[in-house]
Amino acid sequence: MNKGLIFVISGPAGSGKGTVVAALREMLPDIGFSVSATTRAPRPGEVDGVNYHYISRERFTEMLDGGEILEHTEYCGNFYGTPKSEAVRVIESGRDIILEIEVEGALQVKRLLPEDTVTVMLIAPDRAELERRLRGRGTETDDVIKTRLQRAVTEVGLAENYDYVVINETGKAEECAAKLLSIVKAEHSKYSRMKSTVEAYSAE
Amino acid sequence: MNKGLIFVISGPAGSGKGTVVAALREMLPDIGFSVSATTRAPRPGEVDGVNYHYISRERFTEMLDGGEILEHTEYCGNFYGTPKSEAVRVIESGRDIILEIEVEGALQVKRLLPEDTVTVMLIAPDRAELERRLRGRGTETDDVIKTRLQRAVTEVGLAENYDYVVINETGKAEECAAKLLSIVKAEHSKYSRMKSTVEAYSAE
Repeated sequence: MNKGLIFVISGPAGSGKGTVVAALREMLPDIGFSVSATTRAPRPGEVDGVNYHYISRERFTEMLDGGEILEHTEYCGNFYGTPKSEAVRVIESGRDIILEIEVEGALQVKRLLPEDTVTVMLIAPDRAELERRLRGRGTETDDVIKTRLQRAVTEVGLAENYDYVVINETGKAEECAAKLLSIVKAEHSKYSRMKSTVEAYSAE
Repeated sequence: MNKGLIFVISGPAGSGKGTVVAALREMLPDIGFSVSATTRAPRPGEVDGVNYHYISRERFTEMLDGGEILEHTEYCGNFYGTPKSEAVRVIESGRDIILEIEVEGALQVKRLLPEDTVTVMLIAPDRAELERRLRGRGTETDDVIKTRLQRAVTEVGLAENYDYVVINETGKAEECAAKLLSIVKAEHSKYSRMKSTVEAYSAE
């Protein structure tokens, strides 16, 4: 059985990442899930190790410093993150994982598990279309839009650190998800991941 | 428009390459074709530059020595080969090329056009199945089969020089072709090939 892989998907504002990744998950019914760690208290009915791994803030910080948390975020004063050990357990069982994270976090995952991580950045077809999408809702001021646009453009500029860049053409989220699916399949056929199969030929 | 790529597909005896590549070509109606060069004389009705580029044996050898022929073979005393200039013309026009060639030729193409060449080796699932396939026809002596088996195993051992290794499960040529199609699509999304699209964002 082949090992799973971690597919890290980033998409600046206006890339349409949410819709595309939802469509991709539909196409990958056997995808694995890693249980996140959190510093928030369990809610009634939640089970430790099932909903989350509930740990103290001290422990979380310690794990972060030790490179034991692949990626994390802070929300309402609590930390949420993916323990490296959890992700490794899932991929060792042969299942892939999809992590949707922003640029900085994506590069951190790649640094911590370089052999097992594949990074993909989703982008709008061009800057004009990106701006149209950001203006789309028509609820924000020009200044807010300009700031968001500038930030998105800066993030696209960091694509050189990614393995793949996929354009999400307007109205073609399914087609874009199919491209991501191609990347998932192709990565499993890389020589480095087929090595043991090939070596078994000569070993017999 | 993005540049095309050269997909070099090799498959030792018993890999079922013929069927798989035929299925792949069905899935890629827009694939490009490069006109081969040959040292044989044109037959009635054949047109230079359409059927083949008809060149002298001296010119062919000269091109070969100069690294101007991507891959070649000799048949009935005549040379047949793919001129590098032809392949470059096709991929510059944005179309991909598929070349079905054996191991030595495959590595030569990769050496001559490293940035534009993707190499894939097709293999049988395992050695036992490979042997079953080679014995399949039942028309050859045990010695002949053993020699072919040994040669195929040696070739599979050279897979480490390939970018991808794809297993052709018995009776699943279509599925195998779909995997090759994934590789074709994924390779076009590599950052290096999306660089100009990404750079246009900041240039505007």
